[in-house]
Amino acid sequence: MPYLDYVAGAPVDERVVEAMLPYFKHPGNPSSVHSKGFEARNAIEDARTKVASLINADSSEIVFTSGATESNNLAIIGYAMRNKNRGKHIVVSAIEHISIINAAKFLMKNGFEVDYAPVDGHGKVKLNELESIIRDDTILVSVQHANPEIGTIQNIEEIRDVVDCALHVDATASLGKIEVDVQKLGADLVTLSSNDIYGPRGVGALYIRKGVRVNPLILGGGQERGLRGGTESVAGIVGFGKAAEIAEKEWRDEAERLRVLRDRLAEGLLRIEDTFLNGHPEDRLPNNVSVRFSYIEGESILLSMDMEGIQASTGSACTSKTLQPSHVLMAIGLKHEEAHGSVVFSLGRWSSEEDVSYVLEKLPGIVERLRMMSPLYMKRKKGGE
Amino acid sequence: MPYLDYVAGAPVDERVVEAMLPYFKHPGNPSSVHSKGFEARNAIEDARTKVASLINADSSEIVFTSGATESNNLAIIGYAMRNKNRGKHIVVSAIEHISIINAAKFLMKNGFEVDYAPVDGHGKVKLNELESIIRDDTILVSVQHANPEIGTIQNIEEIRDVVDCALHVDATASLGKIEVDVQKLGADLVTLSSNDIYGPRGVGALYIRKGVRVNPLILGGGQERGLRGGTESVAGIVGFGKAAEIAEKEWRDEAERLRVLRDRLAEGLLRIEDTFLNGHPEDRLPNNVSVRFSYIEGESILLSMDMEGIQASTGSACTSKTLQPSHVLMAIGLKHEEAHGSVVFSLGRWSSEEDVSYVLEKLPGIVERLRMMSPLYMKRKKGGE
Repeated sequence: MPYLDYVAGAPVDERVVEAMLPYFKHPGNPSSVHSKGFEARNAIEDARTKVASLINADSSEIVFTSGATESNNLAIIGYAMRNKNRGKHIVVSAIEHISIINAAKFLMKNGFEVDYAPVDGHGKVKLNELESIIRDDTILVSVQHANPEIGTIQNIEEIRDVVDCALHVDATASLGKIEVDVQKLGADLVTLSSNDIYGPRGVGALYIRKGVRVNPLILGGGQERGLRGGTESVAGIVGFGKAAEIAEKEWRDEAERLRVLRDRLAEGLLRIEDTFLNGHPEDRLPNNVSVRFSYIEGESILLSMDMEGIQASTGSACTSKTLQPSHVLMAIGLKHEEAHGSVVFSLGRWSSEEDVSYVLEKLPGIVERLRMMSPLYMKRKKGGE
Repeated sequence: MPYLDYVAGAPVDERVVEAMLPYFKHPGNPSSVHSKGFEARNAIEDARTKVASLINADSSEIVFTSGATESNNLAIIGYAMRNKNRGKHIVVSAIEHISIINAAKFLMKNGFEVDYAPVDGHGKVKLNELESIIRDDTILVSVQHANPEIGTIQNIEEIRDVVDCALHVDATASLGKIEVDVQKLGADLVTLSSNDIYGPRGVGALYIRKGVRVNPLILGGGQERGLRGGTESVAGIVGFGKAAEIAEKEWRDEAERLRVLRDRLAEGLLRIEDTFLNGHPEDRLPNNVSVRFSYIEGESILLSMDMEGIQASTGSACTSKTLQPSHVLMAIGLKHEEAHGSVVFSLGRWSSEEDVSYVLEKLPGIVERLRMMSPLYMKRKKGGE
């Protein structure tokens, strides 16, 4: 049964689970001054090296967190609070993840000004507009590497050229799918997720370029160089490290395989009448197909697909409980009803040809059935006849 | 080989690992609107019910976090920030965990006043002094249920009687060792750790009594009723739930078994000359033996014991990297050298009679060897001869 909601959640790779298992039995606290402590410390430092290697960073630049959301909070709030003497203006793109949007809103309540960098109809940040929004007192710009909902990949190197302050890049959706090289990106802060590369949930990381200072959000006993308190989740971090090691070896082949599946899926779906692609036609994640079906509510198509064993999402799972249309889809200029009719199919490591065939076999019928219930669609159909 | 550093880190119970395994393979995001999402949602709600049941709370009062440190931060900073219009004074006991001490210091930098409630020589909060410290504008008092370093258990019910504002209780060290019933304690906020009851690390919880309001620390997509953003670590939460279920059934018998081992260990250690018990002689955790060996550096005894396969700690692992003596041991009135000569032996689910016998067999020799290197000890010995 095709699970095509990898963007919302991915299974942990069995090799990762294998690597974690010994550390569930291992009692060592990395801060302890004895052999069990040293073993735990070595295990997390080994994982840190692997995560750093995946993004071409130094291991001293990696801080482990509880996940991408915490990393985004640490990057935005932690950086702004630490550097507020240098300015109180930050810029985030209009299609950032909700954790960044909400961190920016928090800063607005705490004396900062926030501007949103607009995007074009494909979801690309408008460079000229970004440039004109940046002020002398802008201390931080945050632009995601790729958007998890519409798949659009930003040209971070071009953006870096117009940003003369600190740059945060949320690489949650891009890591393991396209190249994430912090040197090439020129980013100062980069958010990394474990589960998005088939590691466990509850762990993530923030890359903090050497010399960049942030305030911790969670205060404890000086773990993670004082940047993140709390006893380290050793098994989780070991799992993230293993996932990074696997990703470094396999991501290029995997991306190529997924790109072929993605294109077949997209082509097939777009053959359904009144169906349109969201996001950039070329510069998009190799695992993302975001489409909108006119005259249909995304919610009802999700449930209809689920009854046939197909899982996908409308916009972001993280905000699926609100009835608001996705802020990402609104930012690329979709109308309310277009945003509401959008569905994200996201592929992953275990997606197969059969999954795509199954979806392409079932979808036309599901769409047709749902449209038959739409007065607007039936009216148009009669008009056309 | 005796691992007696359960306070720093515990292995995860195999039954817990078993319960977690299916959820590593399960891709569902609890926020997703399809069957995989609903399954994940049900799994975390089931875990929430189990954790709530262990402490006699309603499941709606449990917020999952990344661990006890985050819970402590959420309780102290989250409560203070949300309720600052009602007053800007908070009180924490002098022997709280470093995550609470540091959260209080953060508040001091942000317009709050903080007072520390002193403790007596056994580590018990002095009720009269606490009462006199509390002011009209005190909004929060934080007193831990039991101290992980010296084992002393506070009488929270008595403390509740003199606290007429919100009361936070850090139950990290007490959960699963003594009764933790939030109704009897009368606490408004209670910190819970997963690993301390043999669940996985990277997960914890905060009990928030119905009607009590806190600000979130980590902002995301509205998870945990808006109090903790970020995709839930489903496997971790399921593991915590399983650990809570096991603890609820087994903690009384386990505590009784550990109490016997603890007493045998304490009696044996105290037979070594110039060795003294830290903490309360009766009101102490059933798994804690904290002793100080005169004329010895805790650090060297840790390493010597480790060479014999015995793991223990000096003070808290969370602050072991600083050279400062434990603030807990200083607060109960120990001198610097007494604090530095202190060792915590903490027992747990897999501690055995043999472990205790082994420690009691090895320790006298280790202590004697180290003392032979102390000029002070040798001088005194000669003087005594």
